[in-house]
Amino acid sequence: MAEKSGHYLDRMFHPESIAIVGASATNPESGWIGQLRDFGYKGKIYPINPNATEILGLKAYPSVRDIPDTVEYAIFNIPARFTLQAMADCVAKGVKFVHVYTAGFSEIGTPEAKQLEAQLVEIARQGGIRMLGPNCMGIYCPESGMTFNPDFSKEKGHVAFVSQSGAESMRLVFLAQDVGISFSKVISYGNAIDLDAPDFLEYLADDKDTKIIACYIEGIHDGPRFLAAIKQCLTKKPVLVLKAGLTESGAGAAASHTASLAGSKSVWEAFFRQTGALAAYTMDEVADIVQGLLRMKEPRGRRVAVVGRGGGIGVIAADICERAGLKVPPFAKETRQKLTAIIPEAGAGVRNPVETTRGLGGAADFYQRGLPIVDEDPETDIILVHMAIDVYGGHTPNLAQITTAAAASLCEKAGSLKKPLAVALFPGGHPDTVLAVTAAREKLTKAGIPVYAGVESASRSINKLVNYYEFIRNRS
Amino acid sequence: MAEKSGHYLDRMFHPESIAIVGASATNPESGWIGQLRDFGYKGKIYPINPNATEILGLKAYPSVRDIPDTVEYAIFNIPARFTLQAMADCVAKGVKFVHVYTAGFSEIGTPEAKQLEAQLVEIARQGGIRMLGPNCMGIYCPESGMTFNPDFSKEKGHVAFVSQSGAESMRLVFLAQDVGISFSKVISYGNAIDLDAPDFLEYLADDKDTKIIACYIEGIHDGPRFLAAIKQCLTKKPVLVLKAGLTESGAGAAASHTASLAGSKSVWEAFFRQTGALAAYTMDEVADIVQGLLRMKEPRGRRVAVVGRGGGIGVIAADICERAGLKVPPFAKETRQKLTAIIPEAGAGVRNPVETTRGLGGAADFYQRGLPIVDEDPETDIILVHMAIDVYGGHTPNLAQITTAAAASLCEKAGSLKKPLAVALFPGGHPDTVLAVTAAREKLTKAGIPVYAGVESASRSINKLVNYYEFIRNRS
Repeated sequence: MAEKSGHYLDRMFHPESIAIVGASATNPESGWIGQLRDFGYKGKIYPINPNATEILGLKAYPSVRDIPDTVEYAIFNIPARFTLQAMADCVAKGVKFVHVYTAGFSEIGTPEAKQLEAQLVEIARQGGIRMLGPNCMGIYCPESGMTFNPDFSKEKGHVAFVSQSGAESMRLVFLAQDVGISFSKVISYGNAIDLDAPDFLEYLADDKDTKIIACYIEGIHDGPRFLAAIKQCLTKKPVLVLKAGLTESGAGAAASHTASLAGSKSVWEAFFRQTGALAAYTMDEVADIVQGLLRMKEPRGRRVAVVGRGGGIGVIAADICERAGLKVPPFAKETRQKLTAIIPEAGAGVRNPVETTRGLGGAADFYQRGLPIVDEDPETDIILVHMAIDVYGGHTPNLAQITTAAAASLCEKAGSLKKPLAVALFPGGHPDTVLAVTAAREKLTKAGIPVYAGVESASRSINKLVNYYEFIRNRS
Repeated sequence: MAEKSGHYLDRMFHPESIAIVGASATNPESGWIGQLRDFGYKGKIYPINPNATEILGLKAYPSVRDIPDTVEYAIFNIPARFTLQAMADCVAKGVKFVHVYTAGFSEIGTPEAKQLEAQLVEIARQGGIRMLGPNCMGIYCPESGMTFNPDFSKEKGHVAFVSQSGAESMRLVFLAQDVGISFSKVISYGNAIDLDAPDFLEYLADDKDTKIIACYIEGIHDGPRFLAAIKQCLTKKPVLVLKAGLTESGAGAAASHTASLAGSKSVWEAFFRQTGALAAYTMDEVADIVQGLLRMKEPRGRRVAVVGRGGGIGVIAADICERAGLKVPPFAKETRQKLTAIIPEAGAGVRNPVETTRGLGGAADFYQRGLPIVDEDPETDIILVHMAIDVYGGHTPNLAQITTAAAASLCEKAGSLKKPLAVALFPGGHPDTVLAVTAAREKLTKAGIPVYAGVESASRSINKLVNYYEFIRNRS
């Protein structure tokens, strides 16, 4: 595994050897050893466990010091009170990176725990070790076969996620996987007592495998450096930030979670205004915005053409779009005339929103004949197609096939559209609907079309993209 | 089927006989005839089709006039141009109610269509017929076996829905069915050229089968009467209104959809402020609020105790709650001490939000031992439990069983809690997660616990309930 950019963190994402300090001998398959092996990590793995001689066929050592070869990376999976000795062992061995998975440090708030954490980082710093954590999940890097969850995709992608929360890092990976999006690097970094968000951001700014950077941040230790790192990234690629703890309630929670000082709301609002970083409020929204950035053409304005079956759904969609900051204006007269010619039965449903007729079959037909007309309309900038498959579940024979056919029709036409396209594919509870929606989502996302769970999430995400691109255009 | 309240609309929901004008002879099973028969309608059904002698074993008649017995209710499933004659036939026959399913009237905006609609209602009025529609799905009433969708539940419930949109009425029924909520009456009433929202509201105010009324409204014809009807309902039961077309974009869409004048935003804001009607913006939100009204105890304040696995999820949840209008304050010192005694490993995760430990098993354990402590906390009014099952999907053996066990633990404890309880059960995309979430949701909702798809929807709904109950308390 060769150096990639020469940046020192390359070795953290591609270590040639990993020691697991506190390797489980009782459940090795589901522990770090089994997980790394099964995920395809190709480097050497050294189990450290004083009570075992072999784990999953690998020779176990009492301490990192006892490993005969060099070790680049260690994972601490031991009680907090044993970490000082283990860190000293790693220093002695010349380990470069230590991921302290162990929790029970400054985040629990006691003076003893804070002192322990300070001692731990002091040993690491004195010994030239860069530390990840404590209280974090570590690294997921499909390229090198590193993971902290056996269920993560082995496929390499172009999204990096820098997360102070382990659970949220898992949620984002799964949310993204559900719509076919893969990652370059995910870093769950916890208390950030040594390596911190700016370190990762400075690295990711120049990482050629990373096209989009998303962050979950509770608190930062060095504001100016964080700001500079974000700005550096934003000259090269979009960055979105879920800044947690911006309310009084959330700030208190962040203090408990990762001992973070959340910072003031006005400071962060200024940060977003100045930098052009995209602000997200939930992990679902992060996944939505990432989809838009990866899959939607740059919108030239905020006027949306809404297309779908169901008049009331169209009215609500128009309201939702406008509340999100977009507009659903009437089409040009010529557009309406052309639409009336191909769907006379739509009546007034050609004004925008368009009400497609005759169920999902009518929708499939409209995508072929009507979307090109909508695409030419001079009064709108973006096409939002809604598919309310939930109203068909159960009573429609072969729903999955009909839905897939409708999705296929949309996929076929999507490539020739000049306007950016997004789809709101409502989930449903009926088993038939769930199957049909899953199949359609897969088809649409594989064709590179962004798919959202509803008009609300779609319009919110689109509005943020429009604002982002406006910022970038005005900047340059 | 006896009269229930003596109100004239009782007969519309419980007609002794229905004529289907334009009964399909080619696809009778999936047409109105097959649908009513299969759904369990017990009255007489008369197919009207001049080209058939028998449909699904029922004698067909050329016209309503030719039916030998009395007919209470007719459904028009014929092209618009034939409706005048059919309405005249119904007048001659003494039909009480006509549901004009047919579209192609004022909503298409042409002078001819508007004139046709005016003539149609004139014939009905002169002849003493009350007309539902045109351009609508009609009646769903499980008690009488009437439906406009074969997939609707046959179970009677206590929610009424008055909807100007057919597709949205179907969406709400399915959204509600997914969480085990059934309906008393659903009315899709379209252009509302004769029977209109106030007629249904006046009836539902005194309908003892209806405990909650939800409305989807695009426009109203008689503002003062609508206001009076809503106020009348609100003296007896909660009413929620999704008023579509309150933005410029939405108002234009509503005009196209049901020829409605949407009304000004400020007038409607005043309406909600004065009446205490609950305002919803999406159909998902309508279903969420209905769940809360049916299943959540009246909250005495807006301070939320957040309980769940995942520190970052807790921080984001606290932010979301506060943005929705709620608060997540620290627990009382005594509460924190008691929680630390039972989950010392939670560290600082006992402050609020509570971070439950050791996965779903830890959650199940916490519900038993920890929820009673949270329930006694004097600083919080509501308990919101989040279950991020999506982070376990795939790699957790027997996920559905473990999740169901956690849900069962929560169900068992829920009954003894004094505080209102809500659950945010995140959907996931992994098949294991989907199965586990579905099973858990069924268990929780059957136990009468409101279940939401996320903290965002839960907190938004809870905030509206808190406001509603405050309004009601201050009124009385």
